[in-house]
This record gives sequence, C-alpha cells and structure tokens, in this order.
Amino acid sequence: MTHLVIIGGSDAGISAALQARELDATAQVTMIVADAFPNYSICGLPFYLSGEVPDWHMLAHRSEQEITREGIQLLLNHTVIHIDAARHDITVINNQQQISQMPYDRLIVATGAIPVLPPIAGIDLPGVFPLHTMANSLAVEHYLESMSPRSAVIIGGGYIGLEMADALTLRGLAVTVVEHNPTVLKTVDADFGQMVATELEKHGVRVISSVRIEEITQVETHLEVRGTQKFSAQADMVLIAVGVRPATELAKHAGILTELHDSIRVTQRMETNISDIYAAGDCVETWHRLLQAPTYLPLGTTSHKQGRVAGENAVGGDREFAGSLGTQVVKVFDLAIARTGLREDEAKQAGFASMTVVSEFWDHKVYYPGAHRMYISLTGDQETGRLLGAQMIGHWQGEIAKRVDILRRHSFIT
Amino acid sequence: MTHLVIIGGSDAGISAALQARELDATAQVTMIVADAFPNYSICGLPFYLSGEVPDWHMLAHRSEQEITREGIQLLLNHTVIHIDAARHDITVINNQQQISQMPYDRLIVATGAIPVLPPIAGIDLPGVFPLHTMANSLAVEHYLESMSPRSAVIIGGGYIGLEMADALTLRGLAVTVVEHNPTVLKTVDADFGQMVATELEKHGVRVISSVRIEEITQVETHLEVRGTQKFSAQADMVLIAVGVRPATELAKHAGILTELHDSIRVTQRMETNISDIYAAGDCVETWHRLLQAPTYLPLGTTSHKQGRVAGENAVGGDREFAGSLGTQVVKVFDLAIARTGLREDEAKQAGFASMTVVSEFWDHKVYYPGAHRMYISLTGDQETGRLLGAQMIGHWQGEIAKRVDILRRHSFIT
Repeated sequence: MTHLVIIGGSDAGISAALQARELDATAQVTMIVADAFPNYSICGLPFYLSGEVPDWHMLAHRSEQEITREGIQLLLNHTVIHIDAARHDITVINNQQQISQMPYDRLIVATGAIPVLPPIAGIDLPGVFPLHTMANSLAVEHYLESMSPRSAVIIGGGYIGLEMADALTLRGLAVTVVEHNPTVLKTVDADFGQMVATELEKHGVRVISSVRIEEITQVETHLEVRGTQKFSAQADMVLIAVGVRPATELAKHAGILTELHDSIRVTQRMETNISDIYAAGDCVETWHRLLQAPTYLPLGTTSHKQGRVAGENAVGGDREFAGSLGTQVVKVFDLAIARTGLREDEAKQAGFASMTVVSEFWDHKVYYPGAHRMYISLTGDQETGRLLGAQMIGHWQGEIAKRVDILRRHSFIT
Repeated sequence: MTHLVIIGGSDAGISAALQARELDATAQVTMIVADAFPNYSICGLPFYLSGEVPDWHMLAHRSEQEITREGIQLLLNHTVIHIDAARHDITVINNQQQISQMPYDRLIVATGAIPVLPPIAGIDLPGVFPLHTMANSLAVEHYLESMSPRSAVIIGGGYIGLEMADALTLRGLAVTVVEHNPTVLKTVDADFGQMVATELEKHGVRVISSVRIEEITQVETHLEVRGTQKFSAQADMVLIAVGVRPATELAKHAGILTELHDSIRVTQRMETNISDIYAAGDCVETWHRLLQAPTYLPLGTTSHKQGRVAGENAVGGDREFAGSLGTQVVKVFDLAIARTGLREDEAKQAGFASMTVVSEFWDHKVYYPGAHRMYISLTGDQETGRLLGAQMIGHWQGEIAKRVDILRRHSFIT
C-alpha cells in the first residue's frame, strides 16, 4: 500500500489526490492544506468581491465531506515546514503550534504561487492588500464592508488587476488602474490591450500606463499613491496585483532543483530531481507545447492537468503532461479577451518568421439581434504556414471562450 | 477569358461566383437567379417570421450592388429552362416570358432544394404554406399580418419545424407540432429529442409524435388537420416542414447523373459526369468525411464550402471538397442543440462497434451567476477509440455552437 502525501489543496493538489485514488483504490492519500479552504476557486475571488458570488462558501469546488468521501485524508491548517527526502518524511506544524513527523512513500509538492510584492514603500499600510488567498479576499471583503472605501488604486493591469477593477467598479468604487507597461493586459498584443483600456475607461475606470508605483503613504484618512512620471493619486484602498511567483522555499530547502523564476524543474512526468518527489501546479515550470521548452505559466487549467499526471505517476502510472499553450480567457466588463499560443513578439523572440493579421467580424449573423463586433488576431509562421498563436476580443456573450478552443485544437496538435 | 455561368444565387452560387472572381479577375461570371432575392439567408427566415428580424431586407447577406461590385453579372427573375451540354449553352426565360440563349465555357448548377410536399389531401388550401423561399416567407408574413391567425399546426418536427414553432409562439399563436417519428428532431438521439419536446411544451407548444398527417380540410373559417392515431386538430394556418429534396429536374434533363435522393452525383472536385459542368449546394450529394461515402446533407455551411470548390475549379483551379460531418446547431426557445458526426444508430448502421455515453455538466462554474445544465452525448468506436459523433444540448447562452466545433476539430481530423 502506497502512502502518497500531497502538500497543497488547490487545483494541482486536489487533481493529484483524486486521480491517485481513482487509479489505485488501495493508495493511502493524505492532503496537507495550510489554511482551512481546500479546493477553493482562486479564479472566482474577483466575482466574490464584486458581489456576483454572494457567499464565499460557493467558491468551494468540493466540500470537505466530498473530498474525504473519495478516501482522501485531509489535514487542514497544517503547514509543512521540512521535507527530509533521504528519510522519506516531512515535518508538519498545525495551528496549535504542534509539530509532528509524517512518513511518505511518494510526495507531491503542490504549494502553488504567492503574490509578488513589489519594492514599494508603505506596502504594509492598512488598506493595502495583495489578492491571492481566501484569507486575503476575506480581509478585502471585511475592509469593503466595514470601512466603505469609495476609491481604490489597483497596482497592476494584468488579468487579476483588471478583473478587480471590474469588481470594485461594480461595488461602486472609483477605480484607478496603474500599469508599468505601455498597455494593460500584456498577455495580448498592444492593440488588443488598447481596446481593453478603452472598455475600462468606458466604465469609468481611470487607466494609467507606463507608470511604476514607488510609494504609498497615509495622508489623514486616505492613502496617497505616488509613482514615476509624477503620478500621484489618493484612494481609500490599494490592491497589489503585479503577478505571482512560485512558492518553492520549502522545496528548495529539501534540495529540489528550481529554475525559471525559481519554479520547480520537472520532467513531463512531473518528477522533480529527487526520487519519489513529484511537483505540479503554480510552483513548477510548465512545458510549452509550441516552444518545446519550459516556461513559467501559472494557470489553473494547467495545474489541473499537471496534478492528474503527478497523481497517476505517483501511484505507479506512466503518463506525460502534453504541455501548455498558455490558453487563457478573461472577462473585463462587457469584453471577453482570449489568447492561445504565442504573441507576435513571443514568436519573433522564439526565432519564428512570424506574421500577424487582425480581422474584424460579427460574432453572429448581423440580422439576428445581439450581434457584436469581434476581432481575431492570428500569428502564423511564414515558413511553414503553421498557426503559432491567436488572440480574440469581443462581447462576453460572443462565445469567445470556446472560439479560442477551436483554434487551439485545430492548429497545434501536430 | 472564361465565361462561367452559375445557376442559382444562394449560398453555393454566391460562394462559387466570389471565389471564381477572386482567383481569376479576368473571368466573366454570370449568376442567374430565379427570383429577386440573391444571396438571402434562408436560415434566417424563421427569425424574420418571429419578428426578431424586423425587416426582411436585413436577411440579404449582400446587396445587389455589393454582388455586382465584385464583377459578377446578376440576372434576377431569370429561370434556366434547358441546358445543352453538347453545344455549351443554356436557355433562359425571364419574368416577361422572353426566351434567350446563353453560351458558357463552364457551368455551375447550384439550384438548391425544394420543400417536400407530402401526399396530404388539402395541402393546397389557402392558409397552408411550405416554408423555403423568400416568396413563401413573404406570403406567410402577409397571412400573419392580414388574417391574424391565432393558431397553427406545423407538420414536421425537424429543425425548421421547431424554429417555426418557436417563431409563431413568439408571435402569439397557439402552436401544435406534429411529427411522424416517435420524437422530434430526429437528427439527434431520442433522449435528446425528448428534452427538446419538453422545452417546447414548457413554452406552450403542443407536441404530437408518431402521427402522420393524412388530410387537411376547410371547416368554416378554420382548417381541420387529421392524421393517424385518430389525430385531429383545428388551426388558422398550417405550415409544411417535412424536409427538402434536391431541385435537379433541369440537371437530369441535361443528362447530369443523379443518385441519392435524386441529388447530383459529384466528385470531390464538384464535377458532374458532364465535362465543364460542376454542381454544388443543396442539389448535390455530399461527401461524408467519416463514412467516406456520399450522403444527402443539405446544409448552408456545406453549400458555402462546395460552392467555393466549384468556383475555384471552374476557373482552372484544383481543389477538393474535404467532406462534411453534418455539423448542425439549432436554437429552440432557450435551448441550443448541436450535433456533429454520427448518431449511435447511424454509427451502428455504418458497421462501427459504437458505444454512446451521455454526461451532464454545468456550462460554466456554478458559483458564477447564470450557469445552466448541459448534456453531452459522445459516440465512440470501441475498436479504435475514435470519436464518431457528438451531440450537445444546453442553454443557448452556454456556447453550445462553439463547443461542438471543438469536438469536430479535435476528433475527425485524422
């Protein structure tokens, strides 16, 4: 009987645990979760804070009972503080500060990612929040409820920053988004990023680009946010959404090799450099199907797939992670924005003789009510004719999320 | 300079004309259209009759000006009454009964399909309408406006019959749909057909199955519709929607070979058996990609593709029609129903060791508002593991139309 221990209870951890139990009903599976929220939807947090998801309990993909019913032993509020790979055991501390040892046959590290906190003076002031965990979100919600802030500055115009701009606008706050790149949403090409900025402005969001925030200070009851280009703004709260980095301190101390952005180096079987230790999710590097090279692409869908592979191999299976294309969809007010594969600049950088064409369409026959304009950007390889990447922008009811999957399936399979 | 003559101005005809002109700007292209409505959306007629498309002019994909601007000579209200393949000319009659001859170098027959009129006594009574052409639809609209009918019987529970049930319900009529099969929408499996029937009933439509209509009579100001199983109903109007058959009389008289359901036999290059004569659209048989055999599958999307192939080859190109999978989506009230590939019974009949599994999903994360249940039926080949067909049913805002394309792209490419 294999004892499989999984550190982490989000997408990668839960997928690994379920897959292991499904393939080997004799496997003893223990999932160790640092907080009290196993298998919660991190992606859903902005919709909780917007009020669209009225109760945070709804963000649980599965309840504790549904998890344990699958034969998974769940240790909540337990943090792993040490991995001893030679002895095959881990050291765990619970929220009563009790320390214990636990042996394992196989270990899966699924410790996820943590928000990058940029070197900004005053980042720890009250009213300044990163947004990543359930605890962060409950703190933001509590602040929204108890302090009734009327304005917010969001540092970072990536997809989480923009979803939060949407969410807080819906909550009635005056929102400013500050991005250090020339356009927001740098996961898409600049002209698409510009369309997103226009949509934000249409809904009253102030969009500041090419500005790097340097300092936050408390001025009476307000926060004052200052940055390059003489940027200055007052707000009642500040959100930090400048990206995430892999949570790999624990793994590194155990001798597990990390590479790109400090993410854990894994094989396509999700093996680390240490035998009997696998890793999956936002803490690992991700094999890119088109680049045929590792990248750092922390996405929930990828974590799920990697978790399943790790879980299967940890109980004796033989599965490879096929790789990611970085396919991603985000909704910002009435727009859905999707991407898959490489942007023009990424393709060029990877050495492709790329070419990009943008076309404009109606999302359905224009005679039928509710048609909207949509834009498709296709990046191809001029040498082979192969599709390298696609981006789409259109109304959120224009089936953008599924259209991008058609291209993804169609083009990259070979 | 090639003179290309195209008989028909709907999907296949217009695609052929545009493709020919795009590839050979010197080609002289004449498109002969029997009525005054070139390049109208037949698929959109139910939405005109429902009132969702307020003006029938909106159903034109292109105006006459947009067509002639592409260098296509347009002859409206002209009917071809004879093809002389040996002499390479056709005989045309216009709506002033003037007859003329026209020579061609290459000819494309794109005469489409016509409604099947079942052998029902009284089918030519006032208030009984087939639904296929713009003229039919304008007649129905005129009847709706001038006679204010309050009830309708629709004979045929295929996709056109069901779209019309939706449309006339929206117009305030009490609608009865009569289908001779045990379930409506026989393009999908019976359990999905049953869900569609439930949706119709939820919106007040009376659904009668396993009944074959035998007679329509005028009883005072009403029509009386009678059929097998002692079925009897009174209504102010009757629509006939029991399917279509290829319009191939003209072609057959010219010696063009027809096969399946009397559709024109074509190669994958869209050549008929007579040199310099091509055919495309609802009047031809369609190569089925999975069956690797011809079928009769009159669909607008297929007509478009076949038309492009015919147009390209007619001006000296060398293109093959890749084949169809019969992919189709229909909206009935709040449901979208999609299919691609083979149903379970079709797969069995084609000799596959097929197996079908139906699964139930949410169309997006259930915590986010507006999630609906959806059902996916997958038919696979037990010997090879290959996907043979898929059906989906769900809310029309659940991206069903694009989801089916993902499966279509994914599975059948090999």
